[in-house]
Amino acid sequence: MKKREPASIAERMRALAVAAKEAARELSRAPTARKNAALLAAADAVIRRSRGILAANKHDLAAAKKAGQNAAYLDRLALDPKRLEGIAGALREVARLPDPVGEVTASWSRPNGLAIRKVRIPLGVVLMVYEARPNVTTDAAGLCLKSGNAAILRPGSDALHSSLALADAFADGLARAGLPRAAVQVVPTPDREATFALLALDDLIDLAIPRGGPSLIRAVAERSRVPVVKHYQGVCHLFLDQSAPVEKAVAIALNGKVQRPGVCNALECLLVHRGAAAKLLPAVGGALAKAGVELRCDPASLAVLTRAGVKAKAAAPDDFGREFLDLVLAVRVVPNLDGALDHIARYGSLHTEAIVTRDLDSARRFEREVTASAVVVNASTRFNDGGELGLGAEIGISTTKLHAFGPMGLQELTAQKYVVQGEGQVRI
Amino acid sequence: MKKREPASIAERMRALAVAAKEAARELSRAPTARKNAALLAAADAVIRRSRGILAANKHDLAAAKKAGQNAAYLDRLALDPKRLEGIAGALREVARLPDPVGEVTASWSRPNGLAIRKVRIPLGVVLMVYEARPNVTTDAAGLCLKSGNAAILRPGSDALHSSLALADAFADGLARAGLPRAAVQVVPTPDREATFALLALDDLIDLAIPRGGPSLIRAVAERSRVPVVKHYQGVCHLFLDQSAPVEKAVAIALNGKVQRPGVCNALECLLVHRGAAAKLLPAVGGALAKAGVELRCDPASLAVLTRAGVKAKAAAPDDFGREFLDLVLAVRVVPNLDGALDHIARYGSLHTEAIVTRDLDSARRFEREVTASAVVVNASTRFNDGGELGLGAEIGISTTKLHAFGPMGLQELTAQKYVVQGEGQVRI
Repeated sequence: MKKREPASIAERMRALAVAAKEAARELSRAPTARKNAALLAAADAVIRRSRGILAANKHDLAAAKKAGQNAAYLDRLALDPKRLEGIAGALREVARLPDPVGEVTASWSRPNGLAIRKVRIPLGVVLMVYEARPNVTTDAAGLCLKSGNAAILRPGSDALHSSLALADAFADGLARAGLPRAAVQVVPTPDREATFALLALDDLIDLAIPRGGPSLIRAVAERSRVPVVKHYQGVCHLFLDQSAPVEKAVAIALNGKVQRPGVCNALECLLVHRGAAAKLLPAVGGALAKAGVELRCDPASLAVLTRAGVKAKAAAPDDFGREFLDLVLAVRVVPNLDGALDHIARYGSLHTEAIVTRDLDSARRFEREVTASAVVVNASTRFNDGGELGLGAEIGISTTKLHAFGPMGLQELTAQKYVVQGEGQVRI
Repeated sequence: MKKREPASIAERMRALAVAAKEAARELSRAPTARKNAALLAAADAVIRRSRGILAANKHDLAAAKKAGQNAAYLDRLALDPKRLEGIAGALREVARLPDPVGEVTASWSRPNGLAIRKVRIPLGVVLMVYEARPNVTTDAAGLCLKSGNAAILRPGSDALHSSLALADAFADGLARAGLPRAAVQVVPTPDREATFALLALDDLIDLAIPRGGPSLIRAVAERSRVPVVKHYQGVCHLFLDQSAPVEKAVAIALNGKVQRPGVCNALECLLVHRGAAAKLLPAVGGALAKAGVELRCDPASLAVLTRAGVKAKAAAPDDFGREFLDLVLAVRVVPNLDGALDHIARYGSLHTEAIVTRDLDSARRFEREVTASAVVVNASTRFNDGGELGLGAEIGISTTKLHAFGPMGLQELTAQKYVVQGEGQVRI
């Protein structure tokens, strides 16, 4: 008798994606009440299965510790009963958000009597590739389910066991609501070839969302035949215009850099108008230095800060355009607004750019001429966030201009189709 | 003395894309009046330079004829004074359309006083790869310019000289309005490596639009690191429900298949409810056959048609899911609405799907459950077109659900950014 060959990774991934596509067709028809029931049941299952999830997480944590991961990394990976409550709460919150599917975003009629509507529909199958953070597994699963999409989730391999355990709990919720288990699947292997195999399946998968550092994003963009919406780094700038009031400049710079330095909407570079550098820099730089921020300065800003007795050092050329994700800030004096616009066009990452100004023309030009998912006038860069902008929960922040630019919530997980109603019209 | 190496194709394409990106920054700031002035001047230049353009076209035509291209192909490639008038008229029409850039699509304020707006901005640099049709060169150039995007255009190589001549005329218009020549560039070589080199430049190019047959679309999707919106084939179905009135069924089927069989929203497959096949098929099939349509039928429909004396033949298995672009139609009897939905889910290309019915439930289920850029009830598939839907001119019809699904007009050539206005708010 011939032995059956074990399935290759490519075959296994195709089978997984075929199951996802079948589930997606069922999900696209599921009424809101059923999706909400699944979300609430999944939240309950996460709590009920706490013990098993925490045991899987313990396993992940031990392996990551052994591999020498640092404390911040381990903290993002770690689960405890309080965090599981947070995960369940987030799922219940998604159940409360309005269902985007079926929303009519525009409608009009034509001279020949045709009635046209644009209607939101699910994207289909969404593949998400992300960091070793177990909570992202349930966040993404919940948002995809509510928007009628099947999800294929590929967490960083250090979070694999935790994510599989959470996905099992989620599947329990799906089953209780009568929805297919394949609506949410975690790729059950840490092998990178699995990701690459999935990215080739443009007949089955509608969107790939890579979230993480440059090497991951590049690897996905290079390999993918599936459309990609990147959630890339935030090299966010704050420009202090000549007219910037000192107090607001200090508060906004400090909030941008210090409140949560490890996130993508944190400030990475301060640009100061030459005409106000002597007035603004000592106060702003002083407050930042006092808060423990290392200032890496161009010669002009270094001179001002040093003269004012603020601790600062010379920047290396590659400190501009860099995402520090730490208490480090690049600082540069620019000749004027145009200098700031040029710097941002060259070094920005299309994420979040802010200005502090009292001048109407400066504000309007900055709003108009800066390309970024969010352009902020007289407020902190930290507001570029789905919750803060009022969109509800988000799956991440897109730095791809196509489809969704900025926080990606439920609406951004949908497509729109035209529905055309006639009474027998033909084209002449 | 060392001879300077000639630049490689990759280097030349990078230089071209860098110039496009610089032009895009300038275009994004250009006021509407200046863009319109350029469009009108370009229209004038097309007429003024007719002689040179027609000479270039003669050159292209001769080469294509020599290469053995068929009459329909040569007709799409050919220009004459009347067609140049049409091209100029289309540019003037785009000048009359509203400028999408700067449009505020939504605005709201947050409890902390932040004022949020979503604002349309250009995408940046758009690369379009298309068929050997010279008019597409100016259509795409005009729509990209109006929406503030720089265009890199790659026509089918048989249309290269015509397209370069038209682009020269367009550049004349740009120059007269004080806009950069690099706003519209035709790739000056037929070498396919040039396209592949451009598709690698995701740091410079924001969107790639391939328009054409399966092999082109696949080659672009496989190679591109730039986001791709596909303008792929239309395998469009018409489902005649049990309640379909005979007259409407005949008119809509005939219009879909016969009015212009070579386009992507033409009908390629007729599905008929089993319960009405005996009533509908002889009339509908008879009218189609009389109009010269070859009917390729499943056994059930073949039996009905043959019995009714309508000329028909047996379908080959691959006739379902096929884009004939000709007076050929696949025909199949399905057991019911679910059978039609299953057939469409399996064989459709997400382009246009239509139903003829008198039944409210059937219409609603079809509208809701069919995934396609346009779902049409009781009207011809031929209405899935930018002009017919009331969007103005279009660059093509997207079959990618992401970003733009269906006709891609000026709005679909924009992205949206958030503009956040505060008075010193920070996040707490």
